[in-house]
Amino acid sequence: MVVAEISVVPLGTGSASVSRYVADCIRVLQESGLKYEVTAMGTIVEGELDAVLAAARRMHAVPFDAGVKRVVTTIKIDERRDKELSIQGKVAAVARQMGEG
Amino acid sequence: MVVAEISVVPLGTGSASVSRYVADCIRVLQESGLKYEVTAMGTIVEGELDAVLAAARRMHAVPFDAGVKRVVTTIKIDERRDKELSIQGKVAAVARQMGEG
Amino acid sequence: MVVAEISVVPLGTGSASVSRYVADCIRVLQESGLKYEVTAMGTIVEGELDAVLAAARRMHAVPFDAGVKRVVTTIKIDERRDKELSIQGKVAAVARQMGEG
Amino acid sequence: MVVAEISVVPLGTGSASVSRYVADCIRVLQESGLKYEVTAMGTIVEGELDAVLAAARRMHAVPFDAGVKRVVTTIKIDERRDKELSIQGKVAAVARQMGEG
Repeated sequence: MVVAEISVVPLGTGSASVSRYVADCIRVLQESGLKYEVTAMGTIVEGELDAVLAAARRMHAVPFDAGVKRVVTTIKIDERRDKELSIQGKVAAVARQMGEG
Repeated sequence: MVVAEISVVPLGTGSASVSRYVADCIRVLQESGLKYEVTAMGTIVEGELDAVLAAARRMHAVPFDAGVKRVVTTIKIDERRDKELSIQGKVAAVARQMGEG
Repeated sequence: MVVAEISVVPLGTGSASVSRYVADCIRVLQESGLKYEVTAMGTIVEGELDAVLAAARRMHAVPFDAGVKRVVTTIKIDERRDKELSIQGKVAAVARQMGEG
Repeated sequence: MVVAEISVVPLGTGSASVSRYVADCIRVLQESGLKYEVTAMGTIVEGELDAVLAAARRMHAVPFDAGVKRVVTTIKIDERRDKELSIQGKVAAVARQMGEG
């Protein structure tokens, strides 16, 4: 299990708004069945590395299907082998440390 | 106003856990008074660009104060001039597009 | 064809130096036959998207094989459909604009 | 001294080409006097952290001056306190490990 952040940015669209493309990407992500969370700066996904990479690859293709000419996609993968990572577990670990501080 | 994502990663600590350092960074961020949100992959901040960069700079210094020898910090800034960006506004724009799809 | 940047960061290793792991990752990348360039901040790769993602996946696994417990890997993909992208072409385009400025 | 990678991406420009904006950013960076290297995926800079952040801030503003409405800028900072980092030194360390492998 890995936790990853995926950000898909369409270039040269003529409009400063990208929410339409982000929404289309998330619909494609939903088909993967992976657990996810939409944030203001990207989409955080949790699952097996191969499934996460396959989903990111499909999300990257989405703006091209809508006629976009250039897409910059960033995938940041966080994987631990000594412990199971999860979206909820990572946030909870920080909250716990904040409480103890 | 910009929305930015800040991620501070300590290297060579001898432990795979970083939540302790992340919690210390967030305490320093809280002193800035900036609006923020902790996610599983970083901290999202909203505010004037100079204030956001100053906060990121202070967060980057935190692990060094705890004896860490190397820190890799990523700051991703999203700024629009045709419209006011906010953490809540960005997530709401995507949700609106999802509803209309 | 895409141009991508891959950065593999081992966490909790006990040493602030990571060049040994980076070198191991590049050896694995070399087996892919993809064109690449090592920079001070990552490795830039050029090729078909699937081949690039497969190489990134193998590079991400390298530090685990050396006993590292946590790895954070960032893959940034730049793809254009209106024009062939290449490492050399992208740098040349900027140089050309610099000359004309 | 830190080594950092700066990437400035203009959104909604109507053209998939960004080399014109990148060239303008590099001209602004040159005024800082910082040592830098242009790669296919960003600009790598070496110097004091405050000078690097100031340069990144000015580079981020460049596309707005040319009428762009939205800019996404990524700044990735690598700092070590146990050893002086440099662009050349980082690449040389990997090359040395490759030779020994």
